[in-house]
Amino acid sequence: MTAIVDPVVAPLPLDLPQVERRYVLPDGFVAGATTCGIKASGRPDLAIVAASGDAVPAAGIFTQSSFAAAPVLLSGAHLSSGGESNAGHAKVVISTSGCANAATGPAGDADQLAIAEHVAGALGVPTTEVLCLSTGIIGTRLPVDRVRAGIDELIAAGLSAEPGGLEAAAEALRTTDSHAKVATTTVSLPDADGLAARVVRVTGIAKGVGMIHPSMATMLSILVTDADVAAGTLHVLLTDAATRTWNQLSIDGDTSTNDTVFLLASGAAGAGRVAPRSAAATTLGAAIAAVARDLARQQAADGEGATTLITCQVSGAIDDREARAVARAVVSSSLVKAAVHGRDPNWGRIAGAAGNAEARIDTARVRIAIAGQIVYDGTAGGPVPFDQAATAAAMNAPEVLFRLDLGLGEGTGEAFGCDLTEEYVRENSEYTT
Amino acid sequence: MTAIVDPVVAPLPLDLPQVERRYVLPDGFVAGATTCGIKASGRPDLAIVAASGDAVPAAGIFTQSSFAAAPVLLSGAHLSSGGESNAGHAKVVISTSGCANAATGPAGDADQLAIAEHVAGALGVPTTEVLCLSTGIIGTRLPVDRVRAGIDELIAAGLSAEPGGLEAAAEALRTTDSHAKVATTTVSLPDADGLAARVVRVTGIAKGVGMIHPSMATMLSILVTDADVAAGTLHVLLTDAATRTWNQLSIDGDTSTNDTVFLLASGAAGAGRVAPRSAAATTLGAAIAAVARDLARQQAADGEGATTLITCQVSGAIDDREARAVARAVVSSSLVKAAVHGRDPNWGRIAGAAGNAEARIDTARVRIAIAGQIVYDGTAGGPVPFDQAATAAAMNAPEVLFRLDLGLGEGTGEAFGCDLTEEYVRENSEYTT
Repeated sequence: MTAIVDPVVAPLPLDLPQVERRYVLPDGFVAGATTCGIKASGRPDLAIVAASGDAVPAAGIFTQSSFAAAPVLLSGAHLSSGGESNAGHAKVVISTSGCANAATGPAGDADQLAIAEHVAGALGVPTTEVLCLSTGIIGTRLPVDRVRAGIDELIAAGLSAEPGGLEAAAEALRTTDSHAKVATTTVSLPDADGLAARVVRVTGIAKGVGMIHPSMATMLSILVTDADVAAGTLHVLLTDAATRTWNQLSIDGDTSTNDTVFLLASGAAGAGRVAPRSAAATTLGAAIAAVARDLARQQAADGEGATTLITCQVSGAIDDREARAVARAVVSSSLVKAAVHGRDPNWGRIAGAAGNAEARIDTARVRIAIAGQIVYDGTAGGPVPFDQAATAAAMNAPEVLFRLDLGLGEGTGEAFGCDLTEEYVRENSEYTT
Repeated sequence: MTAIVDPVVAPLPLDLPQVERRYVLPDGFVAGATTCGIKASGRPDLAIVAASGDAVPAAGIFTQSSFAAAPVLLSGAHLSSGGESNAGHAKVVISTSGCANAATGPAGDADQLAIAEHVAGALGVPTTEVLCLSTGIIGTRLPVDRVRAGIDELIAAGLSAEPGGLEAAAEALRTTDSHAKVATTTVSLPDADGLAARVVRVTGIAKGVGMIHPSMATMLSILVTDADVAAGTLHVLLTDAATRTWNQLSIDGDTSTNDTVFLLASGAAGAGRVAPRSAAATTLGAAIAAVARDLARQQAADGEGATTLITCQVSGAIDDREARAVARAVVSSSLVKAAVHGRDPNWGRIAGAAGNAEARIDTARVRIAIAGQIVYDGTAGGPVPFDQAATAAAMNAPEVLFRLDLGLGEGTGEAFGCDLTEEYVRENSEYTT
């Protein structure tokens, strides 16, 4: 018992703004949703988030799957149509849930294009300004006529800048999520004259808690901000945020054919253009990362069958990349996940998982803490005697923190996962195809 | 219904000799086991396999974990002591089960060396001729005195060339395996004069069906042959076999701190020295691969909580490496594993998992078959209508075969896994540390 807290038992300090889980659209955006009849359940399945005025700068990040779905391929082509890879301009994001439109061949590509063309026609914009999201069953076709009718109905009813419009959109993104996910934050940026600080907002909605049969796949998110940012800079900021957050999220290790994140910037806040690599870009990037991180944590906590959010934070790695690799290896381990489910402070599995990461590790320097308790200290010979019952009790919480310090350098990183439960297996093995 | 069977619905042709699951030691080896008191269960936990005469050429393959256990580090050093990496000479392999001697720091290293020195003293050989295996709980110390006493007792009782000695050794390797694993085969090689064919035998024993708490880890195997082979050639043949078999085995995605395979060659069959890259090396390599493959399949089928062996065979890849990557991605997918448990012919999950592999895939060329039924044919537009109930019924078997043809090249490969069950989660989450 000492007054000085060993850093390895404390959460990693993160320089990110606070977020709230409220539905607030930044200026310059509208949203809405309806039920067009894709989902057998009859729940909302068609969502739109759009710029209020003309198309705005937009960036996208997509699954790396070789079986990337039709909406992924079409959105990537649209975003890249101005010549910059996955960074361009967009008027609208349209999401269909209940059908992934993946592995559907040329017919599926034609379906997706027909939907994009219909939205574009309804809004009077070029088809290349339409971005598409889709999530649901792999290998089935979208009911294009019903989607077209839903689009007409939704646009006729009017999209809204009010919280209800965004909440409806977040609800319509869902497939197996137990609740819709939102995060929002504000930061101050210099105004257009570089003088007074102007507040800009970043808001995101997301879905995706694993895959559920028959392959209700996919992590999807739409982020919007009223900051004024060129598409290329948006892409840099979004990629950096995703590298630290969504790419560190593992629920079951299965990357979907449809994973997509979009970030659109209206510029409506009246702050100045955010220059690449400026202080304002750093501040805005932190806001984007904060929203992305909170959404990723909501997703991990809501993982299929999960009862516990697992956060693994790593310090002392050679660099941030290796820290992230170790954190990801730990939260991805089936054995670690099962141990958390059993409230078992089984540090051997954490060490074993860390040892499999693509990262330099010296076992004589590694230190490991579970829920604030040091359990392994390589600098003191290895295993540390500890009160197993007390640590098991501390693990009986909605979130369990693993801290590792590798003792080699300044690299830090974190990753998010969830426990592995019998319920996960049941949800994903019940026969229904 | 056509008389010509599409290759994608048939098993991949493999040019390997048949194996038997019988305990037969090749000439020049003896084995035995005893109970020295490492396992709380009181089951056999100390095994020895040794050359009958002087030390023989030996090769080893070890876990790549940064947390590699003391026996791994010591065996690697001993095998490499002649200057060739992981290829040298060995008199004896000693296995302790119930304690992994992993993450035990310098004290654990000293324990392992003391055990190796004791065996060496008892047999009158240099310590560098002793190879060690260990499996069991991570982070606990070996009871060195009890192990020493067990060694003395076992050597005093006498090791045996009879089937019973090898069977006892295989039994003593086990931790959570439901049964001991053995495979043996024979092939004909030219004799020392290059004239008449002499029969040589390859036999292997193995353990490892996942990890079970508290981290009863590890895949271990000992292979022995009476062929006459230099250590460097042995290492090449063993590495090639492991690349195609054990490295394609996934039970729960967790690589152990202790994974080890040894191959020892007595030369006692009287066939000539097997030259590197000769026809005899190819023939012997096939025998080694056949034994390794059968042991890996026994391990997958006996995976913790598993009820079904999953074999994924891939053809038409750009090369064998990419074929293996696709096969491994499919059998490693939690969603595929859960679908097999549910007898769900959910080809979208197979496509999704294949799409995540580090391999070139053109979705318009891929074809997928489940249990002999084509379910996806990219060359015909994608999804193929099929009788889902009949295919689900065909999946209700001890082994399910997935066949993929990528339509790009001549590369082939396979991988082995098992279904994901509630029982796996229960075995690995029950609190006992």
